[in-house]
Amino acid sequence: MRTVEWVNGVVRMIDQKQIPWKLELVDLPDYQAVAASITDMTVRGAPAIGASAAFGMALAARQSSAGTPDGLIADLRGAAQVLKAARPTAVNLAWAVDRLMSLVEKGSYASADAIREALLNESQRIADEDVAINQRMGAYGADLIKDGDTVLHHCNTGSLAAVDYGTALGVIRAAFEQGKKFHVLLDETRPRLQGARLSAWEMEQLGQPYDILPDTAAGYYMRKGEVKLVLVGADRVAGNGDFANKIGTYQIAVLAKENGIPFYTVAPTSTVDLAIQHGDEIPIEERDKSEVLTPYGHPITPPHFNARNPAFDVTPHRYLSGIITEHGIVRPPFEINLRRAVAGEQM
Amino acid sequence: MRTVEWVNGVVRMIDQKQIPWKLELVDLPDYQAVAASITDMTVRGAPAIGASAAFGMALAARQSSAGTPDGLIADLRGAAQVLKAARPTAVNLAWAVDRLMSLVEKGSYASADAIREALLNESQRIADEDVAINQRMGAYGADLIKDGDTVLHHCNTGSLAAVDYGTALGVIRAAFEQGKKFHVLLDETRPRLQGARLSAWEMEQLGQPYDILPDTAAGYYMRKGEVKLVLVGADRVAGNGDFANKIGTYQIAVLAKENGIPFYTVAPTSTVDLAIQHGDEIPIEERDKSEVLTPYGHPITPPHFNARNPAFDVTPHRYLSGIITEHGIVRPPFEINLRRAVAGEQM
Repeated sequence: MRTVEWVNGVVRMIDQKQIPWKLELVDLPDYQAVAASITDMTVRGAPAIGASAAFGMALAARQSSAGTPDGLIADLRGAAQVLKAARPTAVNLAWAVDRLMSLVEKGSYASADAIREALLNESQRIADEDVAINQRMGAYGADLIKDGDTVLHHCNTGSLAAVDYGTALGVIRAAFEQGKKFHVLLDETRPRLQGARLSAWEMEQLGQPYDILPDTAAGYYMRKGEVKLVLVGADRVAGNGDFANKIGTYQIAVLAKENGIPFYTVAPTSTVDLAIQHGDEIPIEERDKSEVLTPYGHPITPPHFNARNPAFDVTPHRYLSGIITEHGIVRPPFEINLRRAVAGEQM
Repeated sequence: MRTVEWVNGVVRMIDQKQIPWKLELVDLPDYQAVAASITDMTVRGAPAIGASAAFGMALAARQSSAGTPDGLIADLRGAAQVLKAARPTAVNLAWAVDRLMSLVEKGSYASADAIREALLNESQRIADEDVAINQRMGAYGADLIKDGDTVLHHCNTGSLAAVDYGTALGVIRAAFEQGKKFHVLLDETRPRLQGARLSAWEMEQLGQPYDILPDTAAGYYMRKGEVKLVLVGADRVAGNGDFANKIGTYQIAVLAKENGIPFYTVAPTSTVDLAIQHGDEIPIEERDKSEVLTPYGHPITPPHFNARNPAFDVTPHRYLSGIITEHGIVRPPFEINLRRAVAGEQM
């Protein structure tokens, strides 16, 4: 089962807000519903929202009543704006939408329906590529995991965060499938608890030994010497290797460096944004304080208490041992080597 | 109102599990109930559990039917064992019980009732001293806070964590009472959320501006340059200045050092354990995983999911700018200066 797919003219996705309690699918009939599902985090994870937005564009093409290519393209530009605005930080969203708009704007189509067909095929290709890319990253990254290791992981980067398989958790999956015997520590990842709710559910499905940790305990296990490797995902990688990822990633990177533990992000090259040179140029989404104060409807304080809720942080590249991409592991100097990887060169 | 006090032959305490929803007092009739209230965290915070255990000893003396000093002392030794075993990490618990046992064992009493009276007076003295000590620490520490600063704080170290006033949050209170205008960032402090539930409630009572942060966001605000000072409490300080405190403290210490931010613990000398030379000798309590998976009765995962729950961590002294005690701020070399402070020398 895929996290998001095209089924009979609708976009079907797993409602991630219901995991680990139930596996519920939602069918989205229009691109507005896809944008809303990205904003409210029914679907989340950089690769998964990229594929969702691509399918959203295919839906938008069907929704448009335009009879000419020009008329349809005008409608698609409006849909592209809405979809790209659904969340600001992960670049995969804009990457997927721009890839489809570029296909439409640079191509030459005999009819509006030819565009509709091309968009559906391309969005399907983005989804299929995502799975293949994740499996390749998994194979590269699995070499870093040895029998007996404990691997620390933040947030959710598994099959739920992608179309299937996953990025950082895809590496863990690949090592598991190779028969390696190791342990995984999952940061619960407040405020939305993607580690406790989504990653732990995926480890349960897989049969991979794991423990959930309060986010406060990651450093404790690093200082004790238990953690041998840290793997995280990425929502946007700048040209110099700085990267935005789920809030809390920066802290873990600093702690890994302080304790001499290798720290890798696992990110397809679609997550690299060469238009941005430094991580501090990446827009950071601040979400509603109710996610902190009333997680999943259970209040921990009265609603009028004050809280801040930045959804991402930026980890400077000096903390990174490497970036595991579909073309191999990119090592410093990232400024040079990321460009080579984005160009498709084997690392 | 005090967090814990002696009222008409019972120990009355605020039930901290009910904050911030209601301010409920519980009356404990015997030392076994006091020990249970420490274990289940009805009362928590190193100074508060020290005073609670002291009053527990006064209760134990009343519970004993012994008619002779020797008989009563034998009963008290049993109660002391039970109270000291209630929680392992904070040394204030053992410090208070040992202070009372020493008073009894070294004194010369005409009757069992004279011992009963001496114990009640001494436990009352411990409680009164705690308030005075906190106010002195507050005055020393408040000098570190300037108008316009943002101060980061972990867990709860306020009036609820002590008999009254507080340690690290007592410093914040003192600066507030001096009229300083500053902002406080409160780590929510998973798993038990003492920052979000207790410290935020205290800031609301006081009128001090604050925001609750997910524990994942502390580093984000430090790297942005917003945080000018970090203040935490301590559960046990070793002879070399290493100290145990609520899980997550170590991470914040590392992040403060990485970002050049002064990092202080606020601890009365009763929290210093000169019998222990290094922090790694301090016993770390591991609590039930249900605190992580089902906080305050609200499940975030099915109960069979795996989790680990260390309640404290150790911060090596090299991360510490200083230890704010009732005799002034102890600076490195801690090995020498802590002994001077414990001996009562002015710092």
